[in-house]
Amino acid sequence: MAKHILTILVENNSGVLAKVCGLFARRAFNMESVAVGITEDTSISRITIVVDGDEYILEQISKQLNKLIDVIKVRKLERSTTIKRELVLIKVNATTQSRSEIIQIVDIFRGNIVDVSKDILTIELTGDAHKTEALIEMLRGFGIKEIVRTGSIAIERGNKVIKA
Amino acid sequence: MAKHILTILVENNSGVLAKVCGLFARRAFNMESVAVGITEDTSISRITIVVDGDEYILEQISKQLNKLIDVIKVRKLERSTTIKRELVLIKVNATTQSRSEIIQIVDIFRGNIVDVSKDILTIELTGDAHKTEALIEMLRGFGIKEIVRTGSIAIERGNKVIKA
Repeated sequence: MAKHILTILVENNSGVLAKVCGLFARRAFNMESVAVGITEDTSISRITIVVDGDEYILEQISKQLNKLIDVIKVRKLERSTTIKRELVLIKVNATTQSRSEIIQIVDIFRGNIVDVSKDILTIELTGDAHKTEALIEMLRGFGIKEIVRTGSIAIERGNKVIKA
Repeated sequence: MAKHILTILVENNSGVLAKVCGLFARRAFNMESVAVGITEDTSISRITIVVDGDEYILEQISKQLNKLIDVIKVRKLERSTTIKRELVLIKVNATTQSRSEIIQIVDIFRGNIVDVSKDILTIELTGDAHKTEALIEMLRGFGIKEIVRTGSIAIERGNKVIKA
C-alpha cells in the first residue's frame, strides 16, 4: 500500500464533492486528506485527495470519477515531481517560562505566531506533511490544545499545467 | 446572505465526508470552501466549511449534521473572534524581464517562491482570502497558469478550544 495524490477538476456545484467522496467511501478507500478550492476559473474547483491504498483499486475509482458529469479531469500526480503543501494552525500551552522556547522552535521551522493570550500561543505553519508533523512533535511536550489542518494541496514542478 | 464558518469534528472514516457534503447538497447550499484534516487525535478529523447562505437554513443543516452518527461536534465560528487562513499555490508566467518584479511583489505579500523553471515561477502564499485574492489580482497581468487552494481553516482567538 502506498500513498497517492489525486487531482480532480470539477464543476463548482454543491453536489459534486459528495459524489466524489461517495465513490471513495463505497470502496472503503481511506482518504488521508481532502482539500477543495476554486481555481483561476471560479466556476471550476480543484479537489486534491491524498489516499493510502491499492493502485489497482485507485485506477478503478479514477475511471468511475471520470464518468461523473461534473468531473472535468482526473490526474494522478507523481510524488517525485510534485510540490505538496499543507497549512496547519496549532494552539499550544505557553507559560511565561516556556513562551520564548516555543517562539524559538517556531522560528526554526519558519512558522508564525498568529495569536497570543495569557496561557496560549497560536502558531501557523506551511510545509509538507513531514515538516508539519515534525513541528507538532516538537510542541507536544508543551501541551497541544488544538490542531486544525487544511489537508494537502499539490502542484507539479516546472511548466506542466493541469487545466480544464 | 452572509458568509458563515462551520467547524465539524467527525470520526475519521471513509463515509463521513460524503454524508456531510450530501446534507449541504440536498439543500443546494453552496460551499465556498471545504478543508479536511486530522486533529491532535488522529481518529478524529476536523472539517472547516465556508458557506454563503441563509442563517436559518444553516441552522437546520447543523441540526441534521448533529444527528449523523459519525459527527461529534458542530460549531459555528464568529468571524470577529476567528483566525481564518488558506494556503494557495500559484503558477505564473515569468520572463527574464518580469521575474524580478514578480519576486518583489511576492516579497511584499511575504509569500515564497517554491519552484522556478525557464518561463514559470511557482508561488506559495498563506493568509486570509482577502490577502490571497489581492496577490492573485496583482499577478494576473503577468499571466496566471494555474491556481491550487486548500480552502480555509479557522481557529478561535485566545484560549477557547473546540475538542471532541
